[in-house]
Amino acid sequence: MSLEDLMDTSRIKWINSPGPESDIVISSRVRLARNLNEVPFPHLLSERQANQIVDDVYSALKENPVFSKDIKLYKMNELTAEQKTMLTEMHFISMDLANSERGAVIINHDKTVSIMINEEDHLRIQVMLPGLQLEEALRQIDKIDDLLEEKLDFAFDEKIGYLTACPTNVGTGMRASVMMHLPALTMMEKIGQILSTISQVGLVVRGVYGEGSQAKGNLYQISNQITLGKSEEDIIQNVVSVARQILMSERKTRQNLSGETRLRLEDKILRSYGILTNAKLVTSQEAMSFISDVRLGVDMGIIKDLVPSVLNELFIMTGPAYIQEVSENATTPLERDIYRANFIRQKMQR
Amino acid sequence: MSLEDLMDTSRIKWINSPGPESDIVISSRVRLARNLNEVPFPHLLSERQANQIVDDVYSALKENPVFSKDIKLYKMNELTAEQKTMLTEMHFISMDLANSERGAVIINHDKTVSIMINEEDHLRIQVMLPGLQLEEALRQIDKIDDLLEEKLDFAFDEKIGYLTACPTNVGTGMRASVMMHLPALTMMEKIGQILSTISQVGLVVRGVYGEGSQAKGNLYQISNQITLGKSEEDIIQNVVSVARQILMSERKTRQNLSGETRLRLEDKILRSYGILTNAKLVTSQEAMSFISDVRLGVDMGIIKDLVPSVLNELFIMTGPAYIQEVSENATTPLERDIYRANFIRQKMQR
Repeated sequence: MSLEDLMDTSRIKWINSPGPESDIVISSRVRLARNLNEVPFPHLLSERQANQIVDDVYSALKENPVFSKDIKLYKMNELTAEQKTMLTEMHFISMDLANSERGAVIINHDKTVSIMINEEDHLRIQVMLPGLQLEEALRQIDKIDDLLEEKLDFAFDEKIGYLTACPTNVGTGMRASVMMHLPALTMMEKIGQILSTISQVGLVVRGVYGEGSQAKGNLYQISNQITLGKSEEDIIQNVVSVARQILMSERKTRQNLSGETRLRLEDKILRSYGILTNAKLVTSQEAMSFISDVRLGVDMGIIKDLVPSVLNELFIMTGPAYIQEVSENATTPLERDIYRANFIRQKMQR
Repeated sequence: MSLEDLMDTSRIKWINSPGPESDIVISSRVRLARNLNEVPFPHLLSERQANQIVDDVYSALKENPVFSKDIKLYKMNELTAEQKTMLTEMHFISMDLANSERGAVIINHDKTVSIMINEEDHLRIQVMLPGLQLEEALRQIDKIDDLLEEKLDFAFDEKIGYLTACPTNVGTGMRASVMMHLPALTMMEKIGQILSTISQVGLVVRGVYGEGSQAKGNLYQISNQITLGKSEEDIIQNVVSVARQILMSERKTRQNLSGETRLRLEDKILRSYGILTNAKLVTSQEAMSFISDVRLGVDMGIIKDLVPSVLNELFIMTGPAYIQEVSENATTPLERDIYRANFIRQKMQR
């Protein structure tokens, strides 16, 4: 199956459109876990039942004029392992879905909506927008939820709320998260303290690629842990207010850099720029780290001839699976490092 | 004392003119040790006697129409410690002369000739030319030697030859050396074997900055050890023939680089180029190493928009003492690293 449409990052809204606070908040994401009433949870489904759910969800959307011409269905058993890994790198699907033979995902035209089917729950609806706009993401996902509920009978308990395969998702079934670029807090070793503070207010932080302090590219995802006993709005407000605090802390840390510390940071940023615009070989790990530096340089006004969206793109497009998929002739890691280096050079020279 | 004239590297012939094989042989140098008859060696001189020698040598040259308008005299006791260190970095004088309160040096207009006075011997005459042209350097130095001998009475023994303060220089009093840039042999770890072979034919190799395998900038100086019992021509021929062998070996090693090894080298070269053209801070050690990479890149045709002489200049002009002298306002190592980085960027952007 060809994934050309998905791989064209110019059509991915959260990568290419600016959003509020998008110097630090790369994207906002809300997802809802939903299950069909009186149908076994995915891990207990027969193949026939699983396929039926995919068909039902797809039909429900297809029949709606808002989505009818706008969506595409991708079935996991029609994709290669590399393609599935790429879709996780691009945040379209989870690793769990990639590993599910009966899974499928429906993605809309501007890639803001992805609906995973037969992951841990029957449906995992996701809306992803650029910058800090969780409220808008919630507004949009509520519409989709309502629209699906017209056609599908969701498992819902008046006392508990939405029922889910794992009790940690029960209630709202909602997870709200923001992806933040926090290089200054990481560099000044303030990130550890923030991570531990955050867990006390019911939120979780993890590296977008790799866990905790090892976060590659200084990208962190902050999300709610609790889905039960709070309204959707309250959960969103909690994540937004913590994100704003971290955002201000990152900005302040950047502004307060002075003297030798600032100089050494500028040097690091400019060297990373020099390497990315000249190197013949770049590994994916190096790419993440250098791109993070350059992104910070752009945001701080140290590098002036690049737009931030190029770096959002590169964060995604230099991942191992994306490069493997896009570079058809590169069969060895070394060839992929060459491809990645050329790719980055071209993107940055625009 | 102002050293502006010496610091203007555009007037230094061995840096700015091309010479034979100058992709690998940076410069050729011949020096003659000479002492005045019936005058004590420098370490036994009174101050008056020492000053007299400086005057005598300077007058001898001044009276000759070839040199009269062309030479300048610099006395060590009129220079700061930093200025003297800079002159050693620039190969105009030795460390021994820098440490001698009674020393002086006479340098001609295109900086091919430098005559140290009251170093270990009364006179150390040096001719330095670009590329591999020891024979030409010998021809030129013989002229200067003859010309001085018209005015000065050199200590000479019919059996032994020229008498010198240290017996290792007795005889011809000549040392012939070439400065070679050997990055490929160094990288492929072939340099150790060459060094040990060379010592068996009476030659010495040392790093131009730093000893042996630690040679900074992959610059090596190859010179004769024996001054006695061989003619000047034979000594020169020996050094030239060994230099040619090393030269061929370096060239062959560069040509034979292939596959991943070549790719990784190209990557290293291009990264060094990217760093030098972007960095905000560069230490002198880093400069030597990156400049060596870029020089190799230019010689191998990997970097096309730079002329080799710029890199010859940078090898000299990024040394700690040169930067200290030229950057009057830079008083800390950090400030000098900033100055050096700006300096390199400007030179490379021409």
